[in-house]
Amino acid sequence: MKAALRAQVIETPSWGYGNSGTRFKVFAEPGVPRDPFEKLDDAAQVHAATGAAPVVSLHIPWDAVGDYEALARHAKERGLRLGAVNANVFQDDAYRLGSVAHPDPKVRRQAVDHLLACVDIMDATGSRDLKLWFADGTNYPGQDDITGRQDRLAEALAEVYARLGDQQRILLEYKLFEPSFYTTDLPDWGTSYAHCLALGERAQVVVDTGHHAPGTNIEFIVAFLLRQGKLGGFDFNSRFYADDDLMAGAADPFQLFRILHEVAKNGGFAAETGVAFLLDQCHNIEGKIPAVIRSVMNVQEATAKALLVDLDALRAAQSAGDVLGANAVLMDAYNTDVRPLLAEVREEQGLDPDPLAAYRASGHQERIVAERVGGTQAGWGA
Amino acid sequence: MKAALRAQVIETPSWGYGNSGTRFKVFAEPGVPRDPFEKLDDAAQVHAATGAAPVVSLHIPWDAVGDYEALARHAKERGLRLGAVNANVFQDDAYRLGSVAHPDPKVRRQAVDHLLACVDIMDATGSRDLKLWFADGTNYPGQDDITGRQDRLAEALAEVYARLGDQQRILLEYKLFEPSFYTTDLPDWGTSYAHCLALGERAQVVVDTGHHAPGTNIEFIVAFLLRQGKLGGFDFNSRFYADDDLMAGAADPFQLFRILHEVAKNGGFAAETGVAFLLDQCHNIEGKIPAVIRSVMNVQEATAKALLVDLDALRAAQSAGDVLGANAVLMDAYNTDVRPLLAEVREEQGLDPDPLAAYRASGHQERIVAERVGGTQAGWGA
Amino acid sequence: MKAALRAQVIETPSWGYGNSGTRFKVFAEPGVPRDPFEKLDDAAQVHAATGAAPVVSLHIPWDAVGDYEALARHAKERGLRLGAVNANVFQDDAYRLGSVAHPDPKVRRQAVDHLLACVDIMDATGSRDLKLWFADGTNYPGQDDITGRQDRLAEALAEVYARLGDQQRILLEYKLFEPSFYTTDLPDWGTSYAHCLALGERAQVVVDTGHHAPGTNIEFIVAFLLRQGKLGGFDFNSRFYADDDLMAGAADPFQLFRILHEVAKNGGFAAETGVAFLLDQCHNIEGKIPAVIRSVMNVQEATAKALLVDLDALRAAQSAGDVLGANAVLMDAYNTDVRPLLAEVREEQGLDPDPLAAYRASGHQERIVAERVGGTQAGWGA
Amino acid sequence: MKAALRAQVIETPSWGYGNSGTRFKVFAEPGVPRDPFEKLDDAAQVHAATGAAPVVSLHIPWDAVGDYEALARHAKERGLRLGAVNANVFQDDAYRLGSVAHPDPKVRRQAVDHLLACVDIMDATGSRDLKLWFADGTNYPGQDDITGRQDRLAEALAEVYARLGDQQRILLEYKLFEPSFYTTDLPDWGTSYAHCLALGERAQVVVDTGHHAPGTNIEFIVAFLLRQGKLGGFDFNSRFYADDDLMAGAADPFQLFRILHEVAKNGGFAAETGVAFLLDQCHNIEGKIPAVIRSVMNVQEATAKALLVDLDALRAAQSAGDVLGANAVLMDAYNTDVRPLLAEVREEQGLDPDPLAAYRASGHQERIVAERVGGTQAGWGA
Repeated sequence: MKAALRAQVIETPSWGYGNSGTRFKVFAEPGVPRDPFEKLDDAAQVHAATGAAPVVSLHIPWDAVGDYEALARHAKERGLRLGAVNANVFQDDAYRLGSVAHPDPKVRRQAVDHLLACVDIMDATGSRDLKLWFADGTNYPGQDDITGRQDRLAEALAEVYARLGDQQRILLEYKLFEPSFYTTDLPDWGTSYAHCLALGERAQVVVDTGHHAPGTNIEFIVAFLLRQGKLGGFDFNSRFYADDDLMAGAADPFQLFRILHEVAKNGGFAAETGVAFLLDQCHNIEGKIPAVIRSVMNVQEATAKALLVDLDALRAAQSAGDVLGANAVLMDAYNTDVRPLLAEVREEQGLDPDPLAAYRASGHQERIVAERVGGTQAGWGA
Repeated sequence: MKAALRAQVIETPSWGYGNSGTRFKVFAEPGVPRDPFEKLDDAAQVHAATGAAPVVSLHIPWDAVGDYEALARHAKERGLRLGAVNANVFQDDAYRLGSVAHPDPKVRRQAVDHLLACVDIMDATGSRDLKLWFADGTNYPGQDDITGRQDRLAEALAEVYARLGDQQRILLEYKLFEPSFYTTDLPDWGTSYAHCLALGERAQVVVDTGHHAPGTNIEFIVAFLLRQGKLGGFDFNSRFYADDDLMAGAADPFQLFRILHEVAKNGGFAAETGVAFLLDQCHNIEGKIPAVIRSVMNVQEATAKALLVDLDALRAAQSAGDVLGANAVLMDAYNTDVRPLLAEVREEQGLDPDPLAAYRASGHQERIVAERVGGTQAGWGA
Repeated sequence: MKAALRAQVIETPSWGYGNSGTRFKVFAEPGVPRDPFEKLDDAAQVHAATGAAPVVSLHIPWDAVGDYEALARHAKERGLRLGAVNANVFQDDAYRLGSVAHPDPKVRRQAVDHLLACVDIMDATGSRDLKLWFADGTNYPGQDDITGRQDRLAEALAEVYARLGDQQRILLEYKLFEPSFYTTDLPDWGTSYAHCLALGERAQVVVDTGHHAPGTNIEFIVAFLLRQGKLGGFDFNSRFYADDDLMAGAADPFQLFRILHEVAKNGGFAAETGVAFLLDQCHNIEGKIPAVIRSVMNVQEATAKALLVDLDALRAAQSAGDVLGANAVLMDAYNTDVRPLLAEVREEQGLDPDPLAAYRASGHQERIVAERVGGTQAGWGA
Repeated sequence: MKAALRAQVIETPSWGYGNSGTRFKVFAEPGVPRDPFEKLDDAAQVHAATGAAPVVSLHIPWDAVGDYEALARHAKERGLRLGAVNANVFQDDAYRLGSVAHPDPKVRRQAVDHLLACVDIMDATGSRDLKLWFADGTNYPGQDDITGRQDRLAEALAEVYARLGDQQRILLEYKLFEPSFYTTDLPDWGTSYAHCLALGERAQVVVDTGHHAPGTNIEFIVAFLLRQGKLGGFDFNSRFYADDDLMAGAADPFQLFRILHEVAKNGGFAAETGVAFLLDQCHNIEGKIPAVIRSVMNVQEATAKALLVDLDALRAAQSAGDVLGANAVLMDAYNTDVRPLLAEVREEQGLDPDPLAAYRASGHQERIVAERVGGTQAGWGA
């Protein structure tokens, strides 16, 4: 079990280190990175404190640089590697009515070209995963043709899939709504799954824990996709309402545990399944680096509890139809305080048992506030 | 357009003529049928008044009779035919923890045998569709194994699918929750779709308009399933909250219109697609026969509006990216009062232009209240 | 803290010991009580095992008996006392369109008379609280007049309030929907609060944790009502979807903790505030007595965690605007395993540290299964 | 009825003429105003086309100008008057953790001073209503004290209320969530209502149709507030998911009708009730001026249908307990095509029967695109 915890890799998002907010306001934080290199510097602090976050996702064009190999080297020198490339086709003025599903073929061409360029970047950075989330959809009934948009989406995905290298994958994300408010072209796991089936083996579904309708049982989806061999990975964050993008485990830690229990029970922690564990969240009002550390810790704690579940006892109770007994086995693991165990694992790795204290003691926060003066802070550029 | 309206067939549910209610109370209505034959008598009134409801769905065992050919004859003599057979595997005491996905193989055997018996009934009644809705699921985290239950479900479905005749189909329904409150084994269209894909061509998804999470865009699902050739049909009803099972079109008539617009636009009204248009609703506090008539009328009105949409103008505005223009084309159809048109269609068919007035004038209601005395009123037997 | 845990009183519902289910099926459990006296025998087991459940709520007419003083004596002999009287005005055939808000004054009279009779029962049982939940509402737009129904509701409440003794209270419950599916006459805390304000000091709001719209922040309501001096009590249960009535703490233990944290922080555990802590749940598929024990334990564990919150540290972090620090103070308490502490508290009270094991060892379950043969099992009678 | 339609005043929001979007992207529209004067020029077009939109709401500081009397004169010269002043206390960097409920008294002072300054502006513009919506809340459990924040909010409101002139009102808005994602200090109508009660007669609740939890019955709230004399007005917009801010009537026209039916039935259209009918919406992807015109038309059509309801027939059916009959009375009005009637009303007022055609014919759109070059387009400045 300790080995499994030591082996766990949580990918952090470059954009989690920059400013973010809502349509109402983006509050700037002192010391925020001005470029992707500084984002990696911050990500390195998270890995230094936790030992569990050696991979960093990029968002293109937010992380566009002239020399991606230099960026990969910058990562490597800090004990990091570059992870999923997130293609952003929602911020160009051309994308007002969509990108790959836009009614105008010129806009679709522009979008697909950007996706292909992202694969070029993956070649340079050594990234395995092209993570695709589309803002595409409509705001008003009648605005565009639902099935026509599906045809265009499918065509674009096929072209990009054909461009992938043998070791590369498409991770296809879905989301109920926002920024589209009537239809979204990939609104649920079923739609994403159907497109991945049509594409082939190297297309898989990614589950963002904040992208579902109220009441959706996310662990069911996770279990089902693992059964079908189509779970590509996670975007972890948490929510009380919509796509709130709060820290993973902050809003419903029991849900995060149940999700990771399904991962554990269905073999999803095995490296060969390729399930990616990413964070994708916004730190609108809280300190960004400590928030990422806290999120990594929350995922680790939920994982530790999931690994604690006595599967033999669980299966015995399930087979016997013992409702309360089976539930009790699960709750026993959840109710355990795993913080001492994780402290131990960290100490055995030569880390501080308290990652947040370690970060505070590092002086990094004071350093970046002092040094990162001038320039333009990184953000979403919305 | 009038031809399309004349050709429309809406299937009414036998159980819509019996008593129904909530877990809090079932209010009995005077004159309610005591057996399936009397249900058909009532359904015949709906067809007599509307000319659009010649098919009646059965629910087994609620409609179990000794001689199904006699039942079919009874229908035929009244201008009706028997439609989908709805298999009920949720009311035997054995089904406390599920039916086809129950942990105990003996219970699964019992459930599958019932499904096979339903196909026998279909052979006798000439029904095309075996409609499968399962209450299977769990109430508590850990209670049973999510993927294990999927395996059992898949195995049961395969056995039943193999038993189907060449002209018979499985219509596989999904539902977010209720009566299961943690997991449901077929909670969404994606799960149903994946099972239908595994089964083969004669397994199709049925969309019950009350079975989705809040905010779900149902017309998107309808359009997507039509695109994939996997829409088997509808269970129409309406809702403000959960699976309220109110009269179709009563809660959100604009949604019903949007759904039928997708059906129209994607060819789903063509007989050869085999899309079935069923009602599945409860009349807990209102008169049952008039409520079914009203529901049929609501579906007809939404259909008429959907057929009124100027598709050429719509496509032109969509292609041009004219958001407001495209929306306006749709709204023009929706805002039209189609009741005069439908009155005309009815008169051309030799019907009363006002089906509810026709029913009131028929004297049927007074007759059944007077005659159906004694015996046990039909209901869910929950 | 141990003193606070020892002092905690959780009221269990008589109907939790009987059969319950959904509109689809009520599964009967062997050994279930046949009358209110046997329900008290079962409740006594819960109290014997936990030491925290000495009060039992009644539901009238489900618990109607000829001699309520005898019932109170039966309770007292078993170390129990009778708690809130829940008035049921939703199961008579007259109540198809409502009770106290029914358009027909004769039906309203019948309903109010029942409420007044419940106060008579309270006089006999020594109960303090008249708990009022109304199924009243409408299923269809236009069905009845929203404000007219409010007037009738207000009039009925005023008559009942005038009948209360000095030490008696009305606890006014609200619920978003079910069994009414369009409007509910008391749909949210605001409506209940406005009526309680109009009635006077001895009318207070009761919060059923399963009666809210998706996304509602229940602890906010609890805190707000405590601030206004209008929180009368809780109906605890848990839910994933609607009013699922699962065991308290089973679906979202973190939410239960947050609710009890607001109670603790705002003085709601002090006896003089009169906040009642009731369970109101259904055990559709699990063993009833063990499920009630488990629920009591879940509330105790959430309470213990709430009492563990370091309020000084919390307030310091809050005042300083330290978002992550303040959240961490709360999470530290939540992440603590309080089961050893509660085991200790129980042992100090002379109880078995493991209430479920104690119940299993008691032989009560085998006894009731053997002895309660014949008669009609208690249930909702829906 | 025509008189009522002619008399209807719909207030349009100055910010509806500027750019808006989501956190993902704000798409700029050519010709968008650069200052409040140009916004009024656009609003004048809406009024010219519809004859129903003579009042314009301001948002301060988005509409801050040096001379408010000049702004009021600019309005008057165009046949307009200035309406509600919307105070914006969510975009200063100081407001990261809130405004009037911020833990730091200095920030609260800054916020209250801004609210007081808004009353000064109202004195200059002759506005009656101070519309208050607060982004205040928290993102994480424990972040701040729920009841402490209520105390601060109450104190701030009291200070502002005391500053109001005799003819001025506070319209207090509520919203479930966004931009706060755990608690919002005014999350529902009940909270707003309780604060308005504490403030006094000139504080009233404003209902934004996009600010509720899924499933909330908004017309119930409207009816209840009218009954209590506490409905100050509306912010109309529509939604499929969260606070989507789509055009009023676009997502659920039947809901808008039901809301306006409650207004009509409960006397809310009478001028002396002071109910304000405002639009508050975003036109992220569609043309702004035509979208406002369309929204005004949608409100007019829903109003016309509401006025068509045969209240005598409705009440008769309601009193008789005729569920289907009462529903049919309502639906008859809703299903009527009122566009010819409104065209007639417009012609009688000397207007084009088709407001959108009139706007297109006006040449205004081409003019503003040509003339409004340079400068900074108005927007939210998020």
